Amino acid sequence: MTYCCGILVRDGLVMIADTRTNAGLDNVSTFRKLHIFEAPGERIMAIASAGNLAISQSVLSTLTEGMEDPHTGEVETLLNAPTMFQAAQRIGRAIRAVHATEGDALRAEDISFDVSFLFGGQIKGSRMRLFMVYTAGNFIECTADTPYLQIGEHKYGKPVLDRAMHYDVELYEALKAGLISMDSTMRSNLGVGLPIDVLVVRTDACEADLNHRIEAGEPYFHDLRSRWSAALRAAHQNIPRPPYKNEIEAKAKKEETR
Amino acid sequence: MTYCCGILVRDGLVMIADTRTNAGLDNVSTFRKLHIFEAPGERIMAIASAGNLAISQSVLSTLTEGMEDPHTGEVETLLNAPTMFQAAQRIGRAIRAVHATEGDALRAEDISFDVSFLFGGQIKGSRMRLFMVYTAGNFIECTADTPYLQIGEHKYGKPVLDRAMHYDVELYEALKAGLISMDSTMRSNLGVGLPIDVLVVRTDACEADLNHRIEAGEPYFHDLRSRWSAALRAAHQNIPRPPYKNEIEAKAKKEETR
Repeated sequence: MTYCCGILVRDGLVMIADTRTNAGLDNVSTFRKLHIFEAPGERIMAIASAGNLAISQSVLSTLTEGMEDPHTGEVETLLNAPTMFQAAQRIGRAIRAVHATEGDALRAEDISFDVSFLFGGQIKGSRMRLFMVYTAGNFIECTADTPYLQIGEHKYGKPVLDRAMHYDVELYEALKAGLISMDSTMRSNLGVGLPIDVLVVRTDACEADLNHRIEAGEPYFHDLRSRWSAALRAAHQNIPRPPYKNEIEAKAKKEETR
Repeated sequence: MTYCCGILVRDGLVMIADTRTNAGLDNVSTFRKLHIFEAPGERIMAIASAGNLAISQSVLSTLTEGMEDPHTGEVETLLNAPTMFQAAQRIGRAIRAVHATEGDALRAEDISFDVSFLFGGQIKGSRMRLFMVYTAGNFIECTADTPYLQIGEHKYGKPVLDRAMHYDVELYEALKAGLISMDSTMRSNLGVGLPIDVLVVRTDACEADLNHRIEAGEPYFHDLRSRWSAALRAAHQNIPRPPYKNEIEAKAKKEETR
């Protein structure tokens, strides 16, 4: 399993990915799922992946080697894509290329061709963008109305984002919310686990503001987890008890007054 | 979609079910999913259902009409089951009876035979028990280690229960946690909605302490929702910002000191 989320606010972009992969519960490993393509000051792009690891790695390798455009002969990569939109299209094309090569054989083994990506970043002179690319290579783009996208095990961490996130949240506050969302997911799904890779990019910087791996036992993340737990417990305790009438008492009273 | 949860604590049992059913997003209705079978002072049992409504209703009708035991000729219902365990087995038998009648025809229409139940209650002289019955009619029982069970859209509301719930939580505190869990689910999945049916049974009472329907706009539940939202926002704000080093600043400093 996997959990990755991308958050796009006015100040910039946050991308967070766990590193746990598993082929069954008895075969758990650590693999990087957040990949950064950077020409500092000129462009920065990042891909986070979920789904079948063999497929997502092949897609990434295809993108890194580049795909030849049959008309122009140009070898197309992410780093030479003219726009973020065209870069997202190239990811779609790479997925379909892997599907063309491996799809039939996977189907014969009853393995579903399951892969998805978050793709975010900025090319100098254009705006910062964030996309979610599906298995068929089609994609949607994140907008200010719901300034985040998720792939993988998205449900446990969604309520927190729905409540905390809007387009004007400060960039490192957005990172904080993303880490809380990751914490909620890790608590409920063993298939999502530390270390966590984090990328923060400030709008118009075109280079990483933060490119960090949170390892198990790191004090800040440990503190965030305990504070969030304590706050949830306190929030629960501070809500008044349900005032609904006890039916047995109500019945007894009714009988008394007869 | 549906969300139901059952909570079994030392003090008693809480069962909560939403009432929204949908056949596609364009066909949404309200149906009761929490059904109570009661002989006050002698036994109380409750069933909450998720999955295909036609199947769950047929299972309930089968249980209410009773199934004849081929050996003894006795007509078996929930209300004459000798134990909670045997009552849970009868639910399983009813599911398999409906499957025998309708399974092939559903399969021919490509409709999956999908149904699950929470079944809780107490028979005088025995302990309070809570079960989750699966599509095949097999079931698991709730224990003190994880004192709750969920069916339907369970993920959004699980983190709250994981943090708030343990076996010694007071009964109406458990109801409160269940309502917060329901709120989290309703916010993220439109297929789960008001009104909400609630049952609270105190250990050894063998009758409902509370059998209540929470309608839209009810002040307590409305207040619980806003307090929980506000508390989550505050909790998020009160966690310190991530201290991770800004890479651009770090680079600049490094260059300065050269």
